[in-house]
Amino acid sequence: MKQPAIRPLPLRAFNQLAPTSYTGHLHALLDDWQAVRQATLALIQALDTEDLNLQSMAEASPGKWHLAHTTWFFETFLLANYQLDYQWYEPAYCELFNSYYNEIGEQYARARRHLLSRPRVSEVLAYRKHVDAAVPDLLRQLAGTNRDAQALESCLRLLVLGLNHEQQHQELLITDLQHALSHNPLAPAICAPLPPQPDSGALNWIAMPSGVARIGGPTDQRFCFDNETPVHRHLLHNDYALSSRPINNAEYLEFINAGGYDQHQHWHSDGWAWCQKHAQGAPLYWRQRQRQWHHFTLAGELPLDLQAPVTHLNWYEASAYATWRGYRLPTETEWEHAAQALPVEQGQFAETGAWQPCMPGQTGSESVLRGMFGHVWEWTSSPYIPYPGYRQPKGAIGEYNGKFMANQYVLKGGSCASPQSHLRSSYRNFFYPQDRWQFTGLRLARDI
Amino acid sequence: MKQPAIRPLPLRAFNQLAPTSYTGHLHALLDDWQAVRQATLALIQALDTEDLNLQSMAEASPGKWHLAHTTWFFETFLLANYQLDYQWYEPAYCELFNSYYNEIGEQYARARRHLLSRPRVSEVLAYRKHVDAAVPDLLRQLAGTNRDAQALESCLRLLVLGLNHEQQHQELLITDLQHALSHNPLAPAICAPLPPQPDSGALNWIAMPSGVARIGGPTDQRFCFDNETPVHRHLLHNDYALSSRPINNAEYLEFINAGGYDQHQHWHSDGWAWCQKHAQGAPLYWRQRQRQWHHFTLAGELPLDLQAPVTHLNWYEASAYATWRGYRLPTETEWEHAAQALPVEQGQFAETGAWQPCMPGQTGSESVLRGMFGHVWEWTSSPYIPYPGYRQPKGAIGEYNGKFMANQYVLKGGSCASPQSHLRSSYRNFFYPQDRWQFTGLRLARDI
Amino acid sequence: MKQPAIRPLPLRAFNQLAPTSYTGHLHALLDDWQAVRQATLALIQALDTEDLNLQSMAEASPGKWHLAHTTWFFETFLLANYQLDYQWYEPAYCELFNSYYNEIGEQYARARRHLLSRPRVSEVLAYRKHVDAAVPDLLRQLAGTNRDAQALESCLRLLVLGLNHEQQHQELLITDLQHALSHNPLAPAICAPLPPQPDSGALNWIAMPSGVARIGGPTDQRFCFDNETPVHRHLLHNDYALSSRPINNAEYLEFINAGGYDQHQHWHSDGWAWCQKHAQGAPLYWRQRQRQWHHFTLAGELPLDLQAPVTHLNWYEASAYATWRGYRLPTETEWEHAAQALPVEQGQFAETGAWQPCMPGQTGSESVLRGMFGHVWEWTSSPYIPYPGYRQPKGAIGEYNGKFMANQYVLKGGSCASPQSHLRSSYRNFFYPQDRWQFTGLRLARDI
Amino acid sequence: MKQPAIRPLPLRAFNQLAPTSYTGHLHALLDDWQAVRQATLALIQALDTEDLNLQSMAEASPGKWHLAHTTWFFETFLLANYQLDYQWYEPAYCELFNSYYNEIGEQYARARRHLLSRPRVSEVLAYRKHVDAAVPDLLRQLAGTNRDAQALESCLRLLVLGLNHEQQHQELLITDLQHALSHNPLAPAICAPLPPQPDSGALNWIAMPSGVARIGGPTDQRFCFDNETPVHRHLLHNDYALSSRPINNAEYLEFINAGGYDQHQHWHSDGWAWCQKHAQGAPLYWRQRQRQWHHFTLAGELPLDLQAPVTHLNWYEASAYATWRGYRLPTETEWEHAAQALPVEQGQFAETGAWQPCMPGQTGSESVLRGMFGHVWEWTSSPYIPYPGYRQPKGAIGEYNGKFMANQYVLKGGSCASPQSHLRSSYRNFFYPQDRWQFTGLRLARDI
Repeated sequence: MKQPAIRPLPLRAFNQLAPTSYTGHLHALLDDWQAVRQATLALIQALDTEDLNLQSMAEASPGKWHLAHTTWFFETFLLANYQLDYQWYEPAYCELFNSYYNEIGEQYARARRHLLSRPRVSEVLAYRKHVDAAVPDLLRQLAGTNRDAQALESCLRLLVLGLNHEQQHQELLITDLQHALSHNPLAPAICAPLPPQPDSGALNWIAMPSGVARIGGPTDQRFCFDNETPVHRHLLHNDYALSSRPINNAEYLEFINAGGYDQHQHWHSDGWAWCQKHAQGAPLYWRQRQRQWHHFTLAGELPLDLQAPVTHLNWYEASAYATWRGYRLPTETEWEHAAQALPVEQGQFAETGAWQPCMPGQTGSESVLRGMFGHVWEWTSSPYIPYPGYRQPKGAIGEYNGKFMANQYVLKGGSCASPQSHLRSSYRNFFYPQDRWQFTGLRLARDI
Repeated sequence: MKQPAIRPLPLRAFNQLAPTSYTGHLHALLDDWQAVRQATLALIQALDTEDLNLQSMAEASPGKWHLAHTTWFFETFLLANYQLDYQWYEPAYCELFNSYYNEIGEQYARARRHLLSRPRVSEVLAYRKHVDAAVPDLLRQLAGTNRDAQALESCLRLLVLGLNHEQQHQELLITDLQHALSHNPLAPAICAPLPPQPDSGALNWIAMPSGVARIGGPTDQRFCFDNETPVHRHLLHNDYALSSRPINNAEYLEFINAGGYDQHQHWHSDGWAWCQKHAQGAPLYWRQRQRQWHHFTLAGELPLDLQAPVTHLNWYEASAYATWRGYRLPTETEWEHAAQALPVEQGQFAETGAWQPCMPGQTGSESVLRGMFGHVWEWTSSPYIPYPGYRQPKGAIGEYNGKFMANQYVLKGGSCASPQSHLRSSYRNFFYPQDRWQFTGLRLARDI
Repeated sequence: MKQPAIRPLPLRAFNQLAPTSYTGHLHALLDDWQAVRQATLALIQALDTEDLNLQSMAEASPGKWHLAHTTWFFETFLLANYQLDYQWYEPAYCELFNSYYNEIGEQYARARRHLLSRPRVSEVLAYRKHVDAAVPDLLRQLAGTNRDAQALESCLRLLVLGLNHEQQHQELLITDLQHALSHNPLAPAICAPLPPQPDSGALNWIAMPSGVARIGGPTDQRFCFDNETPVHRHLLHNDYALSSRPINNAEYLEFINAGGYDQHQHWHSDGWAWCQKHAQGAPLYWRQRQRQWHHFTLAGELPLDLQAPVTHLNWYEASAYATWRGYRLPTETEWEHAAQALPVEQGQFAETGAWQPCMPGQTGSESVLRGMFGHVWEWTSSPYIPYPGYRQPKGAIGEYNGKFMANQYVLKGGSCASPQSHLRSSYRNFFYPQDRWQFTGLRLARDI
Repeated sequence: MKQPAIRPLPLRAFNQLAPTSYTGHLHALLDDWQAVRQATLALIQALDTEDLNLQSMAEASPGKWHLAHTTWFFETFLLANYQLDYQWYEPAYCELFNSYYNEIGEQYARARRHLLSRPRVSEVLAYRKHVDAAVPDLLRQLAGTNRDAQALESCLRLLVLGLNHEQQHQELLITDLQHALSHNPLAPAICAPLPPQPDSGALNWIAMPSGVARIGGPTDQRFCFDNETPVHRHLLHNDYALSSRPINNAEYLEFINAGGYDQHQHWHSDGWAWCQKHAQGAPLYWRQRQRQWHHFTLAGELPLDLQAPVTHLNWYEASAYATWRGYRLPTETEWEHAAQALPVEQGQFAETGAWQPCMPGQTGSESVLRGMFGHVWEWTSSPYIPYPGYRQPKGAIGEYNGKFMANQYVLKGGSCASPQSHLRSSYRNFFYPQDRWQFTGLRLARDI
């Protein structure tokens, strides 16, 4: 097993700086540019060309496409807009690698991305190289000639957005690949398995007071996505408690063994219909072999580690589990309020190169929330809707988040496949309630 | 055209009384029982046996099925539970007319209800007659023998729930039938057309202050559904305004004529996909004939009345319209807060027998919200989720509302097909964002 | 059980006469006209209005639609073409009741015929009455005025075609209804059950010599459909034998009990895929109750009669059974060649009013083919293709048969739901290999 | 453009020898073994690893899968059966590369073959190498030890079958790839375009007499597939004529321009439904650019060559064209009878490496059938059914052809992607009537 050599990429300029100060930190941002772009390439070290072309469903994309699309983003929003007389690297790419920006133009059918054997991986890497050089050139040029301070500032904002965008696709590249490889009976592994997890420790309740919480971003003038804005007050009606750590596989297995997937009582109507239609009885990637549970991971098919956080649940499953236990999922506000004082960096992130969630280690104290960041995304009970006063940005960039504010649910905290520097307590991830190919788990909540 | 002779059925005991006082008002409740059950029969006066068997999609049911299911509800929850040695009228009905209560048992496949030529309409009416007699007998018996005061109270609570349930199905019977008849090129009419609507009057903005609103039910100890509970405080972040009346067809036509259905900018991603997939360009039931818009109504196919409220929009369309106008949909809290002081009875309801929405008449004042109740259901921007502290009732009745709290959106106020006594400001109706066969329209909102 | 009083309708003028002599037998043909049209009404005596509106799949139509469509046929092809200044009874019917004649115009969507609550059954019966009177009037008029001998002859040919067409729909009305009623857990019955069948007798082989057979129609100058033409020679390569009678339920049950539905070896690839996809393990309408086989019939759900012919098999099942036994299905030529000398009238037909197949009684001789006509349609191994030299008629009538000569298989002999006068040895019925809602069974064949 | 260097592979021992003489020609057969296996590798010279993983529909497979499956065939039927203590190269391959042999065991889902990034192309090539060595070893061993003459003979028969099987997959590898590449807007080319075709010459009618034809194989004791057996007599009822050459693009364009795709009259009912459902108006791969027709070929997207044979028609289109012209498709018997005296080698075959059909050149005589072999497969009107007396072979090999004898149609003659040595007049290819990704064209027929 060739383990990818991924260096930790902790919080950096592009996520630390106030957007108003970008122009003064061009060098730091160019360093970040190189670091983020390199991190994407580090991810694919263990992958073959053939792996990079896999696509197992419309919602997932080939790794090659992620490599190209993140590059297209910079070409489209920076080079094509700010470089004088810019010549497209290859005009056909504009359609091929546009994900969903109707404002930009047509898009190649999402479900068919696996049919693009050309451009080849090598050609996409050459495309990346071209843009890797052209973007710094453009920025230096704008800075040097002093042609247009406004243009430089706009460019740098887009650069920072693009780096965050690339980080999202780093995670998707991993999770999409796991979904594709899971269809292979050979159970290919692209990273090393985790060691057996130690005892998870008791599931304690960490109490939080009711009151008015301050929710959303940006905080401290740092970058955040538009869907985190504006900062606003939210009334937490009741004192509440969160479980001290994510639910583990042993706990989830109790639900299965108790017949949870056969009892309508715990499920939403749509969740129960999903269960029946797809004849589900366990999280995605769980497989029973001679009455022993295994799960398919990016380290291959392994015996289920009972102490690891349960993952690859969809919202229906997470909800049903919580209901069965007599509890509920946290609201996104409850989660964010509880996480605001916690340090991101204690979690488990993509940089470890071991893309399977471990359980956050026990601390001395029993009254601490463990593993709020990294490990597994935590489903909340909250539909993904705009915050009061939210305004969608103008133009194609406005399509980034706003148009998805329907029919999805908010997840918080990040996962073992998220880059560490990408996360914060106000971060809102979102997926459809039936989706479960991300590293999605849960933490319980209850009223006090 | 034989117009159904439906007498107005204003607010009555079953919706006015405090649940704790039901046992003291047995006679009034028995009057209500008769009135509500009769109102259902009045609805079908203009319908043929063949109309009552129609089903045009899984979400809609034949009129005959509604007649039977509402009866099944009383048999199952009252007679079978509280009558000693009760013999089921016809054991097979238990499965045939169970809608979605998994706790009760299996259900006949929803999409196939139109395949039940037996029991015949006449047999279903005999079934109704049987239960119409048996329920009062049971109640009088429980009251008379004083056998069990608790049983009587439980029964009366279920009776009141059942009457509210029957009222919901009165509305569905009408809207389901319209959907079915809309597939008939003969455009059958079952009621008389409305007269041409007078000018709608200007669309003013009615301002409401920000602050903490008191939301939910029950208020004044009256009946409400469990999904309206508990009463709780909600923070309205901003001063806001609602449009003085629902949007009318003329205003919606401007959106169509401006190319609204061809411009992705106004739509959620899922809404845009819905548009593309179904090639939509107008509300349900709108039809163009020689460049003139008509709409199919329960009074047949008629020229579009530009002054009538636009209806048969789904949530995507309502949202897109609001976005195109530069405004938004109200949240359910904003709507409820604004409606709390308004009288329900000024709206247009099912009792008129003219199941097409009229525009609420102009009043002297320009600063009044018109048509908040009746006319058309108003889409809100709020996903249908549980209120803080909500607890799902135990047993089969718990399936009534709670399990649907996913993937749907809240509508407020009632429609021209809702019984008047059924409504209140805290009432929460809910449908999926793609649904548009109810009388669904919209009112605009904006921040101030 | 109200048994329909259907008088036998043996071979009559319209099927006995040479097309060239029709004009000389106007009175006999008008008698036939009345008899065939009456026979349709006799079929529905036991049915309720609600039964007549049922449609359970796109391939099947409501009884009401059959009543209207057969009437539409005469209106469209006779009245509208030959009556001067004919006023359509109701212009909208032209589209509503057109089955598949593109030459005539648009057709209402086949799968939605159940959505036509209007015209009501009573209105369709009035439509029939109108046409019942108008057609004889037209013919007498053409005959009387001697206006146009050619027109009369053309009309009479269409009349005869229309009567045969109506007979086909008589059978479909019955089989479509059975399919619809089969979805009702109440298992409604519309006719009386058959008495228990006596022993079927041994399955003997009846030998036939190889050689050149004369195949097709018309024979004796009688009416036949265009798909039976032209008469032609066909080379029977080998001596062959047919089983003396259709396979019965006991014999088919052996196949089931031997695991026939779980063994790919007996099946065509498409048949095996059909088995897997639909998880089939028995003929349509067979149901297991406490380990006993029952079948749903038009006399309700009854214990399986082991001595009755197996029916409601599709082509894949019939083929697989034959293969499992080590034999094969007959070709259509083999079947026709063997049947040419046999009398049609000894079979069981629709006129009995007992629409369940009985087993043809044993005769003294063991060397006789029993039950070639009536009882159950017999699948052949022959795809439904044009005979050498076949020419499709001009105009809309050309769509009657020719355009279906792809992807279907030939069945021979008629069934217990076919009118007796409708059949002959050259008759070619055709259905898709997956279809099994007709009374379809099989007879074995083998080379000698 | 790197053109594959494919040497012509004319008729060879494995297709020339009588099966009874195989054991005496071991060396010649081993030469053939090497030649056919090498020819497969020659095909993929111009392809990238990424091309070899493409799969665009369930009916088509990735090139890599073809490489592996043809190897699996030899391993499964020769090595595993005849090699003592044979160790499977990789047990998992048994399921992964089994196409449809239920007798052998489970099969990996056909539609998901593109999800197998592992084994890699390089690993599949190593698998080929292993079997390339093992098969000759086995044969020499069986021949040398004289252990079992019967085993050697059986092995050689399977070897010859396997070589013919591999040739079929050579053609599929090409046509499947074209289908996949057609989805790429970059229109990748893997071979050089043909030069412009000269004038096709007049379409003459070549007359053939009626009578009894001798049909099927084997002829001259040479190899043929079981579906060509047994040789039998067939009655050709009428004198008939075939068009002297395949229809060209110019002629087919007349059909399009005359509105052929919009006129139901020419189509079978199922064909017309196919047209409507898929909104078809031209052969597969035809594309209109600025009112000019282009077609996508394996040499990229090229202007349509009007003189080339029309190809990528399905059976419905071929039939509709013939009907529109007033003619018909030939029966398979008519075609075979006319081709029996013609030399195969004058056609255009896969060995040219130019996988686009050219029009067969004009000869001096006008009374000669041109291009019966190679160029394009010619649709016949004949459903693919067993010949009289056909017997399916025992065991898994019996699944090769027999189980597909339902719902498909026979094609004759081979195409520009067929290996020349693979063809003969009795050869029966078969596809579903909607299939059109093979090189499928047509030749007209008529009665005289």
